[in-house]
Amino acid sequence: MLKVGIYGASGYTGQELLRLLLRHPQTAVVAVTSRRYAGVPVSDIYPVFAGLTDLGFVDASPEDVAGAADIFFLALPHGVSMTVAPAFLAAGKKVIDLSADFRLHDVATYEEWYSRHTTPDIIKESVYGIPELYGDEIAKTRLVANPGCYPTSVVLGLAPLLKAKWIDDCSIIADSKSGVSGAGREPQVGTLFCEVDEGFKAYKVGQHRHTPEMEQEISILAGSNVRITFTPHLLPITRGILSTIYATLQKDVTTAELIDLYRAFYKGKKFVRVYKAGTFPNISSVRGSNYCDIGLFVDSRTKRVIIICAIDNLVKGAAGQAVQNMNLMCGLSEDTGLTMISLFP
Amino acid sequence: MLKVGIYGASGYTGQELLRLLLRHPQTAVVAVTSRRYAGVPVSDIYPVFAGLTDLGFVDASPEDVAGAADIFFLALPHGVSMTVAPAFLAAGKKVIDLSADFRLHDVATYEEWYSRHTTPDIIKESVYGIPELYGDEIAKTRLVANPGCYPTSVVLGLAPLLKAKWIDDCSIIADSKSGVSGAGREPQVGTLFCEVDEGFKAYKVGQHRHTPEMEQEISILAGSNVRITFTPHLLPITRGILSTIYATLQKDVTTAELIDLYRAFYKGKKFVRVYKAGTFPNISSVRGSNYCDIGLFVDSRTKRVIIICAIDNLVKGAAGQAVQNMNLMCGLSEDTGLTMISLFP
Amino acid sequence: MLKVGIYGASGYTGQELLRLLLRHPQTAVVAVTSRRYAGVPVSDIYPVFAGLTDLGFVDASPEDVAGAADIFFLALPHGVSMTVAPAFLAAGKKVIDLSADFRLHDVATYEEWYSRHTTPDIIKESVYGIPELYGDEIAKTRLVANPGCYPTSVVLGLAPLLKAKWIDDCSIIADSKSGVSGAGREPQVGTLFCEVDEGFKAYKVGQHRHTPEMEQEISILAGSNVRITFTPHLLPITRGILSTIYATLQKDVTTAELIDLYRAFYKGKKFVRVYKAGTFPNISSVRGSNYCDIGLFVDSRTKRVIIICAIDNLVKGAAGQAVQNMNLMCGLSEDTGLTMISLFP
Amino acid sequence: MLKVGIYGASGYTGQELLRLLLRHPQTAVVAVTSRRYAGVPVSDIYPVFAGLTDLGFVDASPEDVAGAADIFFLALPHGVSMTVAPAFLAAGKKVIDLSADFRLHDVATYEEWYSRHTTPDIIKESVYGIPELYGDEIAKTRLVANPGCYPTSVVLGLAPLLKAKWIDDCSIIADSKSGVSGAGREPQVGTLFCEVDEGFKAYKVGQHRHTPEMEQEISILAGSNVRITFTPHLLPITRGILSTIYATLQKDVTTAELIDLYRAFYKGKKFVRVYKAGTFPNISSVRGSNYCDIGLFVDSRTKRVIIICAIDNLVKGAAGQAVQNMNLMCGLSEDTGLTMISLFP
Repeated sequence: MLKVGIYGASGYTGQELLRLLLRHPQTAVVAVTSRRYAGVPVSDIYPVFAGLTDLGFVDASPEDVAGAADIFFLALPHGVSMTVAPAFLAAGKKVIDLSADFRLHDVATYEEWYSRHTTPDIIKESVYGIPELYGDEIAKTRLVANPGCYPTSVVLGLAPLLKAKWIDDCSIIADSKSGVSGAGREPQVGTLFCEVDEGFKAYKVGQHRHTPEMEQEISILAGSNVRITFTPHLLPITRGILSTIYATLQKDVTTAELIDLYRAFYKGKKFVRVYKAGTFPNISSVRGSNYCDIGLFVDSRTKRVIIICAIDNLVKGAAGQAVQNMNLMCGLSEDTGLTMISLFP
Repeated sequence: MLKVGIYGASGYTGQELLRLLLRHPQTAVVAVTSRRYAGVPVSDIYPVFAGLTDLGFVDASPEDVAGAADIFFLALPHGVSMTVAPAFLAAGKKVIDLSADFRLHDVATYEEWYSRHTTPDIIKESVYGIPELYGDEIAKTRLVANPGCYPTSVVLGLAPLLKAKWIDDCSIIADSKSGVSGAGREPQVGTLFCEVDEGFKAYKVGQHRHTPEMEQEISILAGSNVRITFTPHLLPITRGILSTIYATLQKDVTTAELIDLYRAFYKGKKFVRVYKAGTFPNISSVRGSNYCDIGLFVDSRTKRVIIICAIDNLVKGAAGQAVQNMNLMCGLSEDTGLTMISLFP
Repeated sequence: MLKVGIYGASGYTGQELLRLLLRHPQTAVVAVTSRRYAGVPVSDIYPVFAGLTDLGFVDASPEDVAGAADIFFLALPHGVSMTVAPAFLAAGKKVIDLSADFRLHDVATYEEWYSRHTTPDIIKESVYGIPELYGDEIAKTRLVANPGCYPTSVVLGLAPLLKAKWIDDCSIIADSKSGVSGAGREPQVGTLFCEVDEGFKAYKVGQHRHTPEMEQEISILAGSNVRITFTPHLLPITRGILSTIYATLQKDVTTAELIDLYRAFYKGKKFVRVYKAGTFPNISSVRGSNYCDIGLFVDSRTKRVIIICAIDNLVKGAAGQAVQNMNLMCGLSEDTGLTMISLFP
Repeated sequence: MLKVGIYGASGYTGQELLRLLLRHPQTAVVAVTSRRYAGVPVSDIYPVFAGLTDLGFVDASPEDVAGAADIFFLALPHGVSMTVAPAFLAAGKKVIDLSADFRLHDVATYEEWYSRHTTPDIIKESVYGIPELYGDEIAKTRLVANPGCYPTSVVLGLAPLLKAKWIDDCSIIADSKSGVSGAGREPQVGTLFCEVDEGFKAYKVGQHRHTPEMEQEISILAGSNVRITFTPHLLPITRGILSTIYATLQKDVTTAELIDLYRAFYKGKKFVRVYKAGTFPNISSVRGSNYCDIGLFVDSRTKRVIIICAIDNLVKGAAGQAVQNMNLMCGLSEDTGLTMISLFP
């Protein structure tokens, strides 16, 4: 039995980690921290846990709590993780960080899009945690930078095409739509029910912080320096991301060939499902599950490929992928505790 | 490994059964039938199953398919189950019927509220499938009449009070609100997105067919003939029922005493959670789970008790309770395959 | 042209008043105040007004702004209105207060459910602003206490029955369901999209502050001291209230007779629509309009009447009724500027 | 007073026309037809009209009803309008057709994307009804082809840029998202509440029939033959379309210059609102109104322009634009009866 801790467990990502880990057959959750809710039973804040756990939030420093578990999930805002991770690593613990702090390999890029980085030396040993791309490295590292939700959908959606060099690298546009849970549980006008319901909008147009993260991974896959246009939108639903990705083809291929390429690339990857021709994923087909569903279309009229990629932002886009990474880091089968079927309707 | 079949598997209840049974550690689903979708892979109709099962819908008579499994779930409209169940029973199979056909002990009442009953002799051996009330009988029967969604919430909400004889039996009012999945997947104007979204209404006021089913069970618990007022409403959500139940108290009790009564009554029942004073359930706290959450309040100003009871209509109100019944009928632990934590947010 | 001001205009009620008054043929909005948004154009906060008005929020004391208009709407929290209204009245202005401060005739009751009242002398001259009941008084007063949203639906739903003395006064139960806009625009966890969406719950069970307001008006109508049980619920929609009201009949009447009673009572009242037998209102049939739609049913099995009453909480439950009151106070036709047809779907 | 008829009035577009025309100060609706609901009062099908009109649906041939009114709106499926319009024109009536039948100037293109055209001779005299582009022609014609909802948003979003020749015509991608009312009121599985709610998907990827309509209008504006990539998506809301449009810039311009271009182009056009830099439209800011709101951004990193365009699909995308066209055809001010402010929240 793995002993695990969740540091910063009071937000939606924290509770989703707890939901998954309480039902994971190989883990025992031994500590969940929160400054705000210190001393409060978890089930008082999240009644879904009523009767299922006696855990209460504790306010503890990393040093205080590091001894209690073998592996720690950090579900903290960016800027905070970097101050906390070193203590866990120093105590010999494995760390999966769900913030942006260790995702960007280039410190200058981090500091341009986020803020000053105070522990840049640690970045080097972090592995970007998309198991379908970096499974071997993840299995060996003690620090995983769990990817952002948007980048997970866009990078998985583009990887086979980029590796195959079938598209013009300068032509990529990602039009992404996310549910509201990605914005967190901190009260603000913009995420009130009345502001979101029956509405739909783009936000942070051309300026979202996930852009450099996508560009880093896409550039690695392409083997060259790639820039993309990325537009996030807010959907009036709680969970899920669907990214519609456009690129110009550099060779004549059919939709069938495209599907073959993707199926070959993701062969053996349990959490990627490539749809058959003429069918496309719906966010409701991945809700509550760790799947990444991909639909493909070659628009021969304009020589463009259209890739549609759906994930649950809290599962494959956050907590689920983090558990998948934990499984790899700890020698478990990749899908342990992650076999939930999507909840529909 | 239990071999199970789902007869009439193409609706929301059928797919929910399949979702639960595919992840149940002791069952193998061997047959799913549908006349409309005969020959079609299940995952073509419900993409949540993509990559998870090779099952396809078959159009088969009960006689044809009875040999394939040990136990059958009938997810059919009322009036159809009664024509199908005898064949499965005759073949020596266990049957859990999710329609109304075997719930009412009195044939005349059935025929008053539904239609003519063609196999009334079978009703006698059916057991009404609320495991918290009829666990012993369920364990011994070969035919369970799985309760209606509304009655599950109302009967579980009232049982302790009725048994204790603390309320005036003539004073019961159940004001229930249900998500749309209870209306099924058959296309009709009334359940179109645009008709339901941002709306809320009562329907079948004073005339819903679940009324006699509730009255049967409430009367048994009360030991006398009880009539209730029941008003169902349609919520613009997919899953969940919340029933707000009112009754006049016949003795002076506090909210704390009420909670004690309920906790004692449901002691050891894993799927009933009685909330602490001042807290009340939200449908979102039971979504996707088999829990029945109950909140209680004594309105001393008017000498009434207010009972608030929430379930997921497709789980505890249908497929989940059916699996719970199957577990009991087959000697398994009641919660096998039913330990899902509610999906929130 | 009436010159009108909205004091405290930055919340949902304030913007709804502005929406109605900008299109009212007899009014010119001359001032909208907000401390928080002082100096900001209204259309920056509410883009629906883009291009339609140059108004900006100002931070002004009642004394500063009183001279600018003939009539003022106060859209302030309770406890604040009472400190502001006197200045407007002293300046000879008409006032429509949308808070609870002048609704309860009995100061002690106000202080029991709310807080200390600092200007109790003004309460006497205020008129409770349901035009269908107090039209003549409203036409003569300079201070209207605009009713709460829940009380509007419950009082209009019960008035004909109480006047006719057909029901047992002790038997009244109001089970009400409201959209989220009633909770205002102040950020808080409970009204975040992710907390509300796909959920449904009761809140302030047996303890909501609108209870004494309802009891005051119901008691006046009944001619005796009446207590009711009132349970508010939160619907995952933005606008609308539907109250399902139960009472025990004291005489044998049919649904048809009940409908006749209501139609006679509300004859000539443009904003009350009594439905024909067998049909019941949906919140979506009143959204965006000033209508109060009522459906009726006699449950002869239990000798109870079921009254279903739907309004838009921001219109007939707040801003629309306030404009209706303004029309009466200023000698205009009651429905001036209020002829919007509900927005469906 | 203009006498108007709605031929095919039972769908969402028909009822929206009725909603607008009943409140239009210069029109009297004299006939609404429906085969299915012949003899039924309009308010039985759409309770929003309860008490507001005595109109009932009639089943009448064009010849039977043509004499009753001066102008007719055809809210019929494509393929049907073409069989009906000639009779109205022959009777000397003005016609505004809301189907696709007269939108495409090229019969062969129509027949490639739709079906055989039986009255191709009439196409020539039809005017494509975007008043902001074809106001003069609309004022003179007797037959308007009211545009599709998606094309309205995309064409208005691109017109100034195409006219100015600032973009590469081959680079245009329109990623559009629509509410469910665009799919009509005919019951089908795909538009059931449970199938749409909490989901999001693309549909008819690369194959939607609005593509040739957009290409026709874009090509006219560009002065050359242009092809675009268009992907429609289904939003879990009732009303509204938001199109995110991408194109590659052919010259160096700033966002400010872009905004200036759009404001100059749409100067005097009451229903187009160009947002200031850094702000972008939300569907909820146009709901229920006839506005088309546009936000603009130059992504200098990738030399692309991002245009975000929001309309209410039932108003500016259908019934509202139809009324706007009627106003022009009949010599009324363009915005008569169309001054509704968006309903928010």
